[in-house]
Amino acid sequence: MVGEDVLVTGGTGFIGSHVVEELVDRGYSVTVLTHSHSRGNLWNVIDQVKLIVADISRTAWLSEVPRARTVIHLACNQRSFSFRRPQRDVSVNLMGSVNVLEYARKHDARIIFSSNSGIYGACVQAKEDDPVNCSTPYDVDKYSAELMMRAYKDQYGIKSTVLRFATIYGPRQRINEKKGWMPVVATFAANLLLGRPITIFGDGLQTRDLVFVKDVPDALLRAMHYSAEFDIFNLSSGREMKIVEIFELVSRFVGVKVRPAHAPSSPGDIRRMSYSNEKIRRELGWKPRTSPEEGIRLTVDAIRQELGQEHR
Amino acid sequence: MVGEDVLVTGGTGFIGSHVVEELVDRGYSVTVLTHSHSRGNLWNVIDQVKLIVADISRTAWLSEVPRARTVIHLACNQRSFSFRRPQRDVSVNLMGSVNVLEYARKHDARIIFSSNSGIYGACVQAKEDDPVNCSTPYDVDKYSAELMMRAYKDQYGIKSTVLRFATIYGPRQRINEKKGWMPVVATFAANLLLGRPITIFGDGLQTRDLVFVKDVPDALLRAMHYSAEFDIFNLSSGREMKIVEIFELVSRFVGVKVRPAHAPSSPGDIRRMSYSNEKIRRELGWKPRTSPEEGIRLTVDAIRQELGQEHR
Repeated sequence: MVGEDVLVTGGTGFIGSHVVEELVDRGYSVTVLTHSHSRGNLWNVIDQVKLIVADISRTAWLSEVPRARTVIHLACNQRSFSFRRPQRDVSVNLMGSVNVLEYARKHDARIIFSSNSGIYGACVQAKEDDPVNCSTPYDVDKYSAELMMRAYKDQYGIKSTVLRFATIYGPRQRINEKKGWMPVVATFAANLLLGRPITIFGDGLQTRDLVFVKDVPDALLRAMHYSAEFDIFNLSSGREMKIVEIFELVSRFVGVKVRPAHAPSSPGDIRRMSYSNEKIRRELGWKPRTSPEEGIRLTVDAIRQELGQEHR
Repeated sequence: MVGEDVLVTGGTGFIGSHVVEELVDRGYSVTVLTHSHSRGNLWNVIDQVKLIVADISRTAWLSEVPRARTVIHLACNQRSFSFRRPQRDVSVNLMGSVNVLEYARKHDARIIFSSNSGIYGACVQAKEDDPVNCSTPYDVDKYSAELMMRAYKDQYGIKSTVLRFATIYGPRQRINEKKGWMPVVATFAANLLLGRPITIFGDGLQTRDLVFVKDVPDALLRAMHYSAEFDIFNLSSGREMKIVEIFELVSRFVGVKVRPAHAPSSPGDIRRMSYSNEKIRRELGWKPRTSPEEGIRLTVDAIRQELGQEHR
């Protein structure tokens, strides 16, 4: 509804910025909670949102943030950091989520939570009721946050909708090779565009289920108006793509042919991933609109433009 | 083995003190990690252990505590507090466990972890592979700690044995009615001995699976020498006792006849609980040695003695 208050945690981040832009576009009144003092990726709509800088794992923000009807809870520490700083992972990904629950309890807000499909472990067409297999502290914290939401629903009637994100990619996704944060499409694209050597971890036959970032806000908006008290959905394409296939596509749009080096697999890396999106199609009417070809082309174009600007 | 170093977290507490006494008795070299500056329940052997006062949820103790071969990890926040201070529950029960895992990683130590059978939710003869049903932040944090241990085993080969404690009761168990901490046997016994009114929450037909605290150390010691890399055991009697039956037994040993008042059930209270102990009998050779009659009699005697001393 136009003018309705929405709080977006992690709203200056990669996914968050796309979500906030869409919300502003549709006339929502948006508050963004971010740990960063920079505007992050939010430059387009920064003047149209209320920005609150706070550490989500602490409780100070609970009294600072005005009432919202919905919390879109995206703030998190990334999976690849989680064995290096497991305590920080617990703080941000679980304690942060408990704080969001307490906020929701205080204001009778509804939560839309970005969980992660990595919690299934290796799987093909995993369904929401399938058993989980957590292999990193990140997985445990995301899954625990889901369990907390379920407990708060039973105890207090707090409504949460959990979306288990598959591999989201697209414009604005950051890379941090030193910290081991190398999202597949962005890393290939940036390295190919910069003429740097390419490394594929493992044999490259491991698969990912890719969702273009511009397809995410629509799912969250649909979840905002979903009636169930507590529910879980995969946010996925349902399609398995091999790392080497993704590399081929990125190479095609960059317009180069390079032979990648191979390095050992990363800790906690998952061999096969794909997640059924039957439930989200059926219950929320969402489906991925952007093909991998289209999405990867748009991502390569965006990174090319960013790099061009940076090097001008 | 005699002289072997063992770290006991929460070692001044109710269960911890019985465990530490047994370890000292058997010749282990024991370090106790406690948040409390008092000796707690550890008066009997306080001069025979190394006591370190620290907040388990912080990391400072990691460098302070000397190497141990085994960590018996008992420190935790109680279940009944967890909805009141969910953030503290995450800190102590999950962050604390992650810190224990990091300690174990640093020293290549083995972990024996006190999880809780409350994570099954309502159940009859639950087995270790049965699905869990977490209804409080405490349940989520205990279960998450188990999942963390499994992830650390896969990632680093850290060995953990999880014991899911049923309702442990016995001498030295504390009561804190203001904070909602009212363990059933101790609360009935103390109130009856003091001539205070008795309250039964709910109809009293809810059941508990009681284990006498003096039977616990033997299970932990057996787990210390268990060979599996990661495993989970119920530590239970396998027997369901109704709250009203427990009340009858306590009344008999106190030697009074009182009609209890009834109050609404506590949040997150579980209707029926009993847990199969088939696996721990088979794999660790443990079984409960103390009957409820015997255990409750010993508990009433101990509380009678304590109250007598306090009022002298």
